[in-house]
Amino acid sequence: MQMTDIIAKKRDGEELSTEEIAFMIKGYTKGDIPDYQMSAMCMAIMLRGMSDRETLDMTMSMTNSGETLDLSPIKGVKADKHSTGGVGDKTSLILCPMVSACGMKVAKMSGRGLGHTGGTIDKLESFPGFTTDMTEEQFYKNVNDIGIAIMGQTADLVPADKKIYALRDVTGTVPSIPLIVSSIMSKKLASGSDVIVLDVKCGSGAFMKTQDDAEKLARGLTRIGRLAGRKCAAVITDMDQPLGHAVGNALEVKEAISVLRGEEKGDLLELCLTLGGLMLTEGGFADSIEKAREMMLETISNGKALNKLAEMVAAQHGDNSAVFETSLLPEAKYKIPVYSTEAGYVRGIQAEQVGLVSMHLGGGRATKDSEIDLAVGVVLNKKIGDHVYDGELLGTIHANDERKGREAVELLRKCYRFSSENHSRPKFIKDIVR
Amino acid sequence: MQMTDIIAKKRDGEELSTEEIAFMIKGYTKGDIPDYQMSAMCMAIMLRGMSDRETLDMTMSMTNSGETLDLSPIKGVKADKHSTGGVGDKTSLILCPMVSACGMKVAKMSGRGLGHTGGTIDKLESFPGFTTDMTEEQFYKNVNDIGIAIMGQTADLVPADKKIYALRDVTGTVPSIPLIVSSIMSKKLASGSDVIVLDVKCGSGAFMKTQDDAEKLARGLTRIGRLAGRKCAAVITDMDQPLGHAVGNALEVKEAISVLRGEEKGDLLELCLTLGGLMLTEGGFADSIEKAREMMLETISNGKALNKLAEMVAAQHGDNSAVFETSLLPEAKYKIPVYSTEAGYVRGIQAEQVGLVSMHLGGGRATKDSEIDLAVGVVLNKKIGDHVYDGELLGTIHANDERKGREAVELLRKCYRFSSENHSRPKFIKDIVR
Repeated sequence: MQMTDIIAKKRDGEELSTEEIAFMIKGYTKGDIPDYQMSAMCMAIMLRGMSDRETLDMTMSMTNSGETLDLSPIKGVKADKHSTGGVGDKTSLILCPMVSACGMKVAKMSGRGLGHTGGTIDKLESFPGFTTDMTEEQFYKNVNDIGIAIMGQTADLVPADKKIYALRDVTGTVPSIPLIVSSIMSKKLASGSDVIVLDVKCGSGAFMKTQDDAEKLARGLTRIGRLAGRKCAAVITDMDQPLGHAVGNALEVKEAISVLRGEEKGDLLELCLTLGGLMLTEGGFADSIEKAREMMLETISNGKALNKLAEMVAAQHGDNSAVFETSLLPEAKYKIPVYSTEAGYVRGIQAEQVGLVSMHLGGGRATKDSEIDLAVGVVLNKKIGDHVYDGELLGTIHANDERKGREAVELLRKCYRFSSENHSRPKFIKDIVR
Repeated sequence: MQMTDIIAKKRDGEELSTEEIAFMIKGYTKGDIPDYQMSAMCMAIMLRGMSDRETLDMTMSMTNSGETLDLSPIKGVKADKHSTGGVGDKTSLILCPMVSACGMKVAKMSGRGLGHTGGTIDKLESFPGFTTDMTEEQFYKNVNDIGIAIMGQTADLVPADKKIYALRDVTGTVPSIPLIVSSIMSKKLASGSDVIVLDVKCGSGAFMKTQDDAEKLARGLTRIGRLAGRKCAAVITDMDQPLGHAVGNALEVKEAISVLRGEEKGDLLELCLTLGGLMLTEGGFADSIEKAREMMLETISNGKALNKLAEMVAAQHGDNSAVFETSLLPEAKYKIPVYSTEAGYVRGIQAEQVGLVSMHLGGGRATKDSEIDLAVGVVLNKKIGDHVYDGELLGTIHANDERKGREAVELLRKCYRFSSENHSRPKFIKDIVR
């Protein structure tokens, strides 16, 4: 088998065989196939597409390119969640304790992530002592004992994706549905859960610009998940502003805690209830989304979801007193109010740009080795549809460096778009794909 | 400027700017842009295409990536010819002396070439002592003095093409019209001639499988040539059998000499008259193709074309006695007749396969460093439309290794296709594009 022939086949719009896909993924992972051939192939896939069968084969070959987690030592139905990436997305911190409190097992592998804020693990490190450094046995034991655990990604999980993703990033081949699907789903399949729910972001700030593209991606993800024998559903959500109010690590933990306490509602809670509703119905814990929502709202009102978060933090050697007393979370030295210089209704808040403000303050990682400042970030006081007077508080900058904090004020102001009328906002949850 | 952005632009079907194309060709030639980005770009160009303006910009950037020949020291109109590659193609050996005898200047840069037989230079080395090793000044002087000279390709002519072609070859990006056009025309432009004629082969054995594709390529080549300020025309010829009767270096020289002597007619002469007709009319030496054909036929009947070949060989230090006495050309030890085991009309002769027979006998180069055996090859006795009896002579194998010669007999027999009826053959010269 020759890689050049396989490239030519895809270039001409033909379907690749299972053997050809396996040859290509194995060869590229091992280094037998050079980058320049794989990048030409990625461009051919990007422009010619792949059938479901090809995408499944590619996903399975990638899944099997390294270690996979065998969650069979964990009793019960295991659930996992993935988001295509949003600013201020603290969903996992709320959703995982809620569904765990409903009886599902959450054995989650999370990343640290590059970008505007840290990943879920960075956020959880706001609790002093919290660690994801544990053996697989300890991880299984924690899930069996308390129903939830979060582990860092092992180095050898889906090495094919690490290599292919790095190559796609510099060759203009990121926005291809079969390539995105195989990248996301190979990691989810290797992580071993039975139920996988996906949050596909849509809009100008997101990866999928149109609802049509987002639907295509969501259908691709769920189809491949099901073909691989998992229960799978997706939610398509609008990304015309950051999710919730806080952007920044400890600030997001604090916001997650207020949701778990029942103090904050809105889009963020709605998203968690929708994703959780899909998880609980797909996993057989509820007959309907309505029933599932009731179950989850009860874990908030009776404090079980908040307790579950506290249990998890403690089981992973963290000091959980901040779960009940959020003033103990890392706090920034400077809190700088940002006042509006315009009046009107908020029409949009550029999510990507708000993310860059948090990054500027030190809340995200520019390179793999950057240190994150857990305390810094942005809290938005006004969101889409809110009326704002000239001089009214738009949000607050949390900074540890005064100069950077001052700079951030202007940057945040520029993220807001106003309009004299209150236009109706596009639906936040645009569709559910199952 | 970022290569990733330029790739994404072409991927999305947009037109690249002159600056973007120059950045890409310069960067890749210098090694600043890695292979994996250029191969993704080639695939994007392959599947999205390029406008004439983009193709011209790419051609000019490639032309200027290294040295270019300045033919201004040569007085008069300079002509050049290119073929997209055929088996048994000895056209240059006939055409160049003919048009030179008509008063055009032929300052030709030729290659040695990999493949079934050598290039024009290898063929001319059948004359003992012949060399292309000369200074540019000597080259110009020869063309001024006798009207014709052939030089080897200098190392630094169009380095961008050398790099891009090697990459395309292993990334499934060879059959793209803008990429083929820029590869061919950058070399032709760098070689400096005023009039460029192109022979675009078409058919199952050729690079362009359909007449439609061949027309597209021919139009692409001539348009870019004209946009670059040269006179340019193309001929589309059918490649359902080798050109003429001989395949092999000295064997082809011998056949060229019989055409120049007026002893052989047929497709080979017809092609030379057509290409030459375009050269002479484009160059202003004749008012019409008909007139140009008369002029060229006269150079055959009065012996001037043959003398021109002899003059050139002598001027390049070759012993030209074989021009007048072809038995002095290198001759193979074994001449093995190949008899037909079938009867019928010849319907087709697989040109590529006949080329491989010559290669098997040692007449071509498998790698850059292979030595060529000038004497070996194949002479076809029967061509398309000829009737063949069972046991009649199909052709002759010329071999220096008896075992290989015996093997070649069966290989050559397999190249022939017969039919019980004499179907009308597709037109040899399918179209003229100017």
